[in-house]
Amino acid sequence: MADTLRIGIAGLGTVGTGVVKMLEKNSALIKSRSGRKIEISCVSAKTKKKKRSVDLSKYKWIDKPEDIAKQDIDVVVELMGGSEGTALNLIKSALKNGKHVVTANKALLAHHGYELAELAEKNGVSLNYEAAVAGGIPVIKAVRESLMGNRITGIYGILNGTSNYILSEMRKTRRAFKDVLKDAQSLGYAEADPTFDIEGVDAGHKLSLLASLAFGTKPDFKNVKTKGISHISETDIAFATELGYRIKLLASAREVDGKILQTVEPTLVRENSSIGMTEDVFNAVTIEGDFVQKPFLTGRGAGEGPTASSVISDLIDIARGSKIPTFGVAAKDLKTAKPMQRDAMKGHYYLRLNVLDKPGVMADIAAILRDHNISIEGLVQRGYGRDDARKAPIMIHTHVTTHKAISGAVAELAKRNFCVEKPCVMLMIEDL
Amino acid sequence: MADTLRIGIAGLGTVGTGVVKMLEKNSALIKSRSGRKIEISCVSAKTKKKKRSVDLSKYKWIDKPEDIAKQDIDVVVELMGGSEGTALNLIKSALKNGKHVVTANKALLAHHGYELAELAEKNGVSLNYEAAVAGGIPVIKAVRESLMGNRITGIYGILNGTSNYILSEMRKTRRAFKDVLKDAQSLGYAEADPTFDIEGVDAGHKLSLLASLAFGTKPDFKNVKTKGISHISETDIAFATELGYRIKLLASAREVDGKILQTVEPTLVRENSSIGMTEDVFNAVTIEGDFVQKPFLTGRGAGEGPTASSVISDLIDIARGSKIPTFGVAAKDLKTAKPMQRDAMKGHYYLRLNVLDKPGVMADIAAILRDHNISIEGLVQRGYGRDDARKAPIMIHTHVTTHKAISGAVAELAKRNFCVEKPCVMLMIEDL
Repeated sequence: MADTLRIGIAGLGTVGTGVVKMLEKNSALIKSRSGRKIEISCVSAKTKKKKRSVDLSKYKWIDKPEDIAKQDIDVVVELMGGSEGTALNLIKSALKNGKHVVTANKALLAHHGYELAELAEKNGVSLNYEAAVAGGIPVIKAVRESLMGNRITGIYGILNGTSNYILSEMRKTRRAFKDVLKDAQSLGYAEADPTFDIEGVDAGHKLSLLASLAFGTKPDFKNVKTKGISHISETDIAFATELGYRIKLLASAREVDGKILQTVEPTLVRENSSIGMTEDVFNAVTIEGDFVQKPFLTGRGAGEGPTASSVISDLIDIARGSKIPTFGVAAKDLKTAKPMQRDAMKGHYYLRLNVLDKPGVMADIAAILRDHNISIEGLVQRGYGRDDARKAPIMIHTHVTTHKAISGAVAELAKRNFCVEKPCVMLMIEDL
Repeated sequence: MADTLRIGIAGLGTVGTGVVKMLEKNSALIKSRSGRKIEISCVSAKTKKKKRSVDLSKYKWIDKPEDIAKQDIDVVVELMGGSEGTALNLIKSALKNGKHVVTANKALLAHHGYELAELAEKNGVSLNYEAAVAGGIPVIKAVRESLMGNRITGIYGILNGTSNYILSEMRKTRRAFKDVLKDAQSLGYAEADPTFDIEGVDAGHKLSLLASLAFGTKPDFKNVKTKGISHISETDIAFATELGYRIKLLASAREVDGKILQTVEPTLVRENSSIGMTEDVFNAVTIEGDFVQKPFLTGRGAGEGPTASSVISDLIDIARGSKIPTFGVAAKDLKTAKPMQRDAMKGHYYLRLNVLDKPGVMADIAAILRDHNISIEGLVQRGYGRDDARKAPIMIHTHVTTHKAISGAVAELAKRNFCVEKPCVMLMIEDL
């Protein structure tokens, strides 16, 4: 174990350069804790010329990132991103060549995790990905190692900092989604094409990995139901605040009777709950286990330092000789997830309508809810956002009902002429 | 690795029976995640007769707990407690016999951790203790593994559930320390002799382990400065609340210029901070690293399920073949901690006096503070707790000053006749 652990890094963006900085700055510390020196043998990225905040001249440059897998190294660190192409080829080739892989690539693992886990196992190497979920928060290790004695029944989290920042800002500054998104883009929190972040795709990738670890199933991203945040209005934020809730893009995975429900969707959570108080770009995760109950982890979910910290922890694990199955159990034991139908799922719901302000509308709304056996816990019609066109927003929160009932009622409401906008419906969760 | 991992459990109180229950209930799950069956070979405790919530008849009973170390097993699970005597003898003997040890015994590790780490290393076995700190929260693993790439500069936490429960209840119910302590005792949250919990000793034991991991030093419990909570009055709680703070028994370890300060003492933290919002019996830890910044972990710090969950995670690590140095680096590399003098440490302070309500007192107080170069940020004299004896509580919060200055001023104030009670002084921390 006294040998140097030689690594090759492919991808030198924010995270890649962060990893170089951390290995340089804390070199002695990392050696004493790993029991071995961790040495960068070679680096690669799409373009060599790009100006970077570290001096790379002392490392061997490999022109094609895919060739990193062929170097005389122990670990390939893949930080390029992208679920297909170069990153995938590199990782496959590294595993086949008997090299450990450390990656931050959630999209790739969400799509190809199972075959890569098999490949890692077959070749007796590790596939580590702490940095792929929730940046600097050690949530992969918490689920893959610390909570493994528990039957895990649910995982709930804020797994995308961009959308959490936008929702937090909308609340704090009472501005519209589009305005805040623009700010987030200029601050570098959101990409030019923000789709993956604001539509729940990125959080869905991460959730599928956590669900795999929690339930012993193959990552099942295709069955993650996602709903984004672009339709959330200032009115919704104001109504939620009035009720004592915050709107969060909540990623949740639950197992009930052997079936799994994975959702990423705007959800109302109590403003004084752990998840509710997770603001700005922070990420957070709560894991529900039969013995441990509900530990809660939070911290920075992205950024150079926190993400590099997680990459290095994966490298230290490898240096120390730890070998943990990619998804918590041997790949052959991973079951195929059976997706759960939501129809019977119960909960309180928030429903916001924008209706024509004319006689009889409330009676119609009430009748539709009655016909779907939905009982109203509270109803508010107020001047939020009312404009000249004589439209009025109405907010209803329901007693416990089923997903089927609320979906049916919303579909019917959406068809009515008095509904001038698609109704906004969100689950309310009390105990996070 | 396909062999069964055979364990012997010494100590069958709340935690011990919890471990038995968890291994029985989640046996198949644990086997598939560990890659091996984890089997209880034998059990022991002080008395066999005691009524317990699990059926132990199927396990071999060993009359003397110390003899567990001599059985044909792979791991000794020590859950008896006590820093000397049987537990210590058992663990030493187990390590010498080449058996891994899993323990929840913070007091024992705080006092003997270094020699035991050496012994474990010499014999090529693991000494794991996730359950010793913060119950079900995987904080040992977070520091010992996940954050090891960071230079850790500070660890801050609520590490004792009993005292946190008492402080939370005092605030919520506006009752006196003694009353709430009695309740806590009848609820089973506090022991008949509550000294270790309410005087910060238990939190100090835990802190010394975290500090060792964070700073690569031998556990140094003797240099943990502890101050308990029994002197905190309803008046203090009310003043703190008025300022927007909560009083927490904060355990903190900091490294500055190679010197280490470890304290457990009542501290004012912002009411809307992560630590401030950790209430009741919950525990919480924030770790400050140069790259990861400040992840925060919280959850149940005690109880059958959460503690058993941590014991099992240690066992699964052993079953999976992971071997991590007891205190994060090889025992021979652990430095002797150099304790830091507090004199030059700076901060805002809370100061509460109980004074005779007569002319000239405020002038004297102001003069003493001036003479110690302490600037007043706020001062309140109000009817909280004022009684017939014409005493008045005064609360002062200071601008940034040094520990030396505030200690000097408090010592002088305490000597004055107008001070009818020992002044209460607490550090205020803004950014936790």
